Amino acid sequence: MSYMLDEIRQQPEVIANLVEHNSGNARMLAAEMRKRDINLMILAARGTSDNAATFGKYIFEMVNGIPVALAAPSIITLYGARLRLDKALVIGISQSGKATDVVEYLDRAKNMGALTAAITNEPESDLANIADYTLLCHAGVERGIAATKTYTATLGSIYMLAAAISDRTDLLDGLRKTADLMQQALSCEDRIAVVSERYRYMEECFIIARGLNQGTAAETALKMSETSYLGAKPYSAADFMHGPIAVIHEGFPCFLIAPDGKAFDVMIETADKLKEKGAELAIIANNQEILSKATVPIPIPVQMDELFSPLVYIIAGQLLAYHLALTKGYDPDRPRGLSKVTLTR
Amino acid sequence: MSYMLDEIRQQPEVIANLVEHNSGNARMLAAEMRKRDINLMILAARGTSDNAATFGKYIFEMVNGIPVALAAPSIITLYGARLRLDKALVIGISQSGKATDVVEYLDRAKNMGALTAAITNEPESDLANIADYTLLCHAGVERGIAATKTYTATLGSIYMLAAAISDRTDLLDGLRKTADLMQQALSCEDRIAVVSERYRYMEECFIIARGLNQGTAAETALKMSETSYLGAKPYSAADFMHGPIAVIHEGFPCFLIAPDGKAFDVMIETADKLKEKGAELAIIANNQEILSKATVPIPIPVQMDELFSPLVYIIAGQLLAYHLALTKGYDPDRPRGLSKVTLTR
Repeated sequence: MSYMLDEIRQQPEVIANLVEHNSGNARMLAAEMRKRDINLMILAARGTSDNAATFGKYIFEMVNGIPVALAAPSIITLYGARLRLDKALVIGISQSGKATDVVEYLDRAKNMGALTAAITNEPESDLANIADYTLLCHAGVERGIAATKTYTATLGSIYMLAAAISDRTDLLDGLRKTADLMQQALSCEDRIAVVSERYRYMEECFIIARGLNQGTAAETALKMSETSYLGAKPYSAADFMHGPIAVIHEGFPCFLIAPDGKAFDVMIETADKLKEKGAELAIIANNQEILSKATVPIPIPVQMDELFSPLVYIIAGQLLAYHLALTKGYDPDRPRGLSKVTLTR
Repeated sequence: MSYMLDEIRQQPEVIANLVEHNSGNARMLAAEMRKRDINLMILAARGTSDNAATFGKYIFEMVNGIPVALAAPSIITLYGARLRLDKALVIGISQSGKATDVVEYLDRAKNMGALTAAITNEPESDLANIADYTLLCHAGVERGIAATKTYTATLGSIYMLAAAISDRTDLLDGLRKTADLMQQALSCEDRIAVVSERYRYMEECFIIARGLNQGTAAETALKMSETSYLGAKPYSAADFMHGPIAVIHEGFPCFLIAPDGKAFDVMIETADKLKEKGAELAIIANNQEILSKATVPIPIPVQMDELFSPLVYIIAGQLLAYHLALTKGYDPDRPRGLSKVTLTR
């Protein structure tokens, strides 16, 4: 079997396994954060890990009320800025723990007085060695070049840290339950394999979400770029209305990620607007109200709390990227021009 | 003349004019920041203003050393999160001052104890009324639906606030000089009008920059989307290497924004990598070393400090969007489906 498909299917187990580990480290980090009265979190990451960071911003702000910034590493690595970080926790996220500029960012942030942590799948990596605290993904070796299970394991680590910071054991229960729901969601694969046929000659598309699933949209678009070489562009439904909607013409393919929850009404409005313009609408959702608006409905047969939906809905995105690659005649395990570890400065 | 072209050409004057205004307000805000020991800035914005915010993150962190987060408004407006903002300055950016979710974000942030400010072109707007301090863009009425001069005026306001926070009057001098350089840069229009012909049938492209000009890439892509309905996708040269480079095939059009400075070497490496893959390279730069690598060089005949280059290089991006629209037979003053004020929640 393809590494990528195999690892997509491992994800429920990876999350179930993760909840039983690592909460010790998360609790120690949370205690240190309280001791140092941390009032800012900065997440430094690239690529897939940066999409996990986007998700992290929502979770830490929503669950913990601590403002979160995503790092622009070059400000420190290229421009040598000195930031005031005495009340900041800086978290470097890299599955390999090798992303050069993320490692350098964390190192320099530590020198500037920040509390530091790493979220990584590699306990012996540079990133883990530098960080004051390490949250391990426990995802096992990832062989697919397109990261899948390390993405969801990173999301899992973020939930666990959020739970530790605000002492919310209910979130750990939620995470356990979500592992089961991820298993259910995998059943959408048959439908996605069929749907992919329709997009054999698609060369560009938009992936649109709002709120918590912003990172899901970005990660779906990235997987499609990596495995199918598509110009797949992620948008917040709000930013999308501020300009990019002008691009839409009859038949332009838009994939909407629209789980139930607080962002749902905005996604309904977005679907209506896109329909008016004659866009091709593929909609990934559980709710019939929005699925009925789709050109191509992709039902996710899972009733769930929106807070955990990013773990479930990314599975549809990953499977879509995988099957699109097959349909287009590409090997998803051998994306042209990519390697497992990317070094940038 | 088209409103858009007229307003692109007004920009040197707008910046020259801005430096003579508003520094009073910026100084008062800076004094209040010191008094309240602000150690975090949060910028809330949508669309073009959000691209200005991306730029703001670089400037405030580089010049002032204060960590900067870009707001995800939905965390407050949809999910009702309460953030700890007692040491934070929250700046809402909206040329019209009407962007609904930005206004709401600022209002709620104020209730959570944040110091608040607005950067807007409309002194009587909701945003200005809510904010503790207002930095006016003084750009005059903007008639073009694709914002141009309000973008650069927002950048100008950001430089002025950064100057005030760290008492850097040299930055005000730099801004004055830059107004003249922007005038020189306008001379690239003839070349850009010719170059646009080549892209009559281009349907998608990447716009790549690094560091300070990240916002320039995003804003160039947005202008192209708005006026020419192109799938134009902005990338950081670093993020680009983590996946999206797989999309590149023979002839794929990439526009590189590569002024001299600290990010220049990375852009050279990016150009080499793209050339290897046979991409079509349009390069906007002043330096012959990188221009000589271009399929289509677009020289910007301006020697300058990288810190101010976003004000100069966006002019090329705006002119490119304008002339592409004309070449494709569209009216840049009437982008389909857009209006001057976009309301999202």
